[in-house]
Amino acid sequence: MLSLYVANKNYSSWSMRPWVLLKQAGIPFQEVKVRFDPFDLPDADSQFKQRLAEVTPAGRVPVLVDDGFAVWDSLAIVEYVHEKFPDRNIWPSDPQARARARTVCAEMHAGFSALRSHCPMNIEASLPQIGALTWRDQPAVRKDVQRIIAMWSGLLEQYKGPMLFGEFSAADAYFAPVCLRIKNYGLPVPGHVTDYIRRVCALSGVKAWVEDALAEKDFLDFEEPYRTSR
Amino acid sequence: MLSLYVANKNYSSWSMRPWVLLKQAGIPFQEVKVRFDPFDLPDADSQFKQRLAEVTPAGRVPVLVDDGFAVWDSLAIVEYVHEKFPDRNIWPSDPQARARARTVCAEMHAGFSALRSHCPMNIEASLPQIGALTWRDQPAVRKDVQRIIAMWSGLLEQYKGPMLFGEFSAADAYFAPVCLRIKNYGLPVPGHVTDYIRRVCALSGVKAWVEDALAEKDFLDFEEPYRTSR
Repeated sequence: MLSLYVANKNYSSWSMRPWVLLKQAGIPFQEVKVRFDPFDLPDADSQFKQRLAEVTPAGRVPVLVDDGFAVWDSLAIVEYVHEKFPDRNIWPSDPQARARARTVCAEMHAGFSALRSHCPMNIEASLPQIGALTWRDQPAVRKDVQRIIAMWSGLLEQYKGPMLFGEFSAADAYFAPVCLRIKNYGLPVPGHVTDYIRRVCALSGVKAWVEDALAEKDFLDFEEPYRTSR
Repeated sequence: MLSLYVANKNYSSWSMRPWVLLKQAGIPFQEVKVRFDPFDLPDADSQFKQRLAEVTPAGRVPVLVDDGFAVWDSLAIVEYVHEKFPDRNIWPSDPQARARARTVCAEMHAGFSALRSHCPMNIEASLPQIGALTWRDQPAVRKDVQRIIAMWSGLLEQYKGPMLFGEFSAADAYFAPVCLRIKNYGLPVPGHVTDYIRRVCALSGVKAWVEDALAEKDFLDFEEPYRTSR
């Protein structure tokens, strides 16, 4: 049986990616939720880090554990699941589409830092005014979103939708948190991108994650640059 | 025929990874060197970005081009080469070793930001005094190096060396620039880690890259936080 370690669903965008992927692919797993500490603590004092140390030396979620063997990075988890369940269409079946899907996921994995830092995922929060100010004042965020728009538009056109590579793949799971950011911060995107975001939000795996996130009702100051309370 | 777009060999650690991998794996390719501009320019004015736009919308090296099809992220390039040349042992053959190799590469891909920003790769420079000050003053760099030491030590013990997963794999190519940083900044590591670094530096692919880097003799201010001239 697979176990997937995740953090708070309202905040942890990296946890969300493999969770949504496994759900959409119909792969059973046990969820192990390790909540962030109420304050951002040094490692030695962090219950979160101490708990995770059971399964990973890297101190981060998500972690997939398969019968005692741990894989502790979201992209490595995708590849592990792809190899273990070759019939679940984790990546697109065409080799070039698969290479392109890996490329855009790797871009996400190491990039889009302005969008990630200025618009942290916060599923329960609606922050259009913050989004409008961010859009006005942060050229790097505009650049990140413009790259996202160009990427998604090109892929939706090339592979004819409804998902980035035609049918659902790991790439859609990888960009699901970005969809939620664009939606919740009200960042301006063209209609066909809004339509794609709507389709992602309607995926059963995404809906299930969002429902769980809304039920959490945690409030962590260090994840809340734009709110003082719920 | 494969083409690999790389930037200045003295500075571009991300370019180095797939280049060393292809060389070590004996896969022929044409190198396309796109030098960084002398100054760090906005995209619109950058010859570097304009030249790269031929093959990638992401504006970054490395880019692998296979008969017109571009893969523009180092990790996606590794997977592409792994699929195209399944007999070259790009990843370890054991599934768990392969998953672990992907995990540590993904950790490198998105992490170690303190080491990367405080000790940028600069192959021709010997900077032990800078390294000693960085070690004293930057706890985040110490933490990054401690994680590297723990990771490499564990893998060298588990897989018995000489490389991280026994024989050479993409993981060694991925950490080759880290070896050069530790060496050139004189960061303190245990003897068995120094021995591993020495073995990596003795790989023919690494030696060839370093030779080319030393022959470049470029000096880019924005890549040189610690020197005013060569």
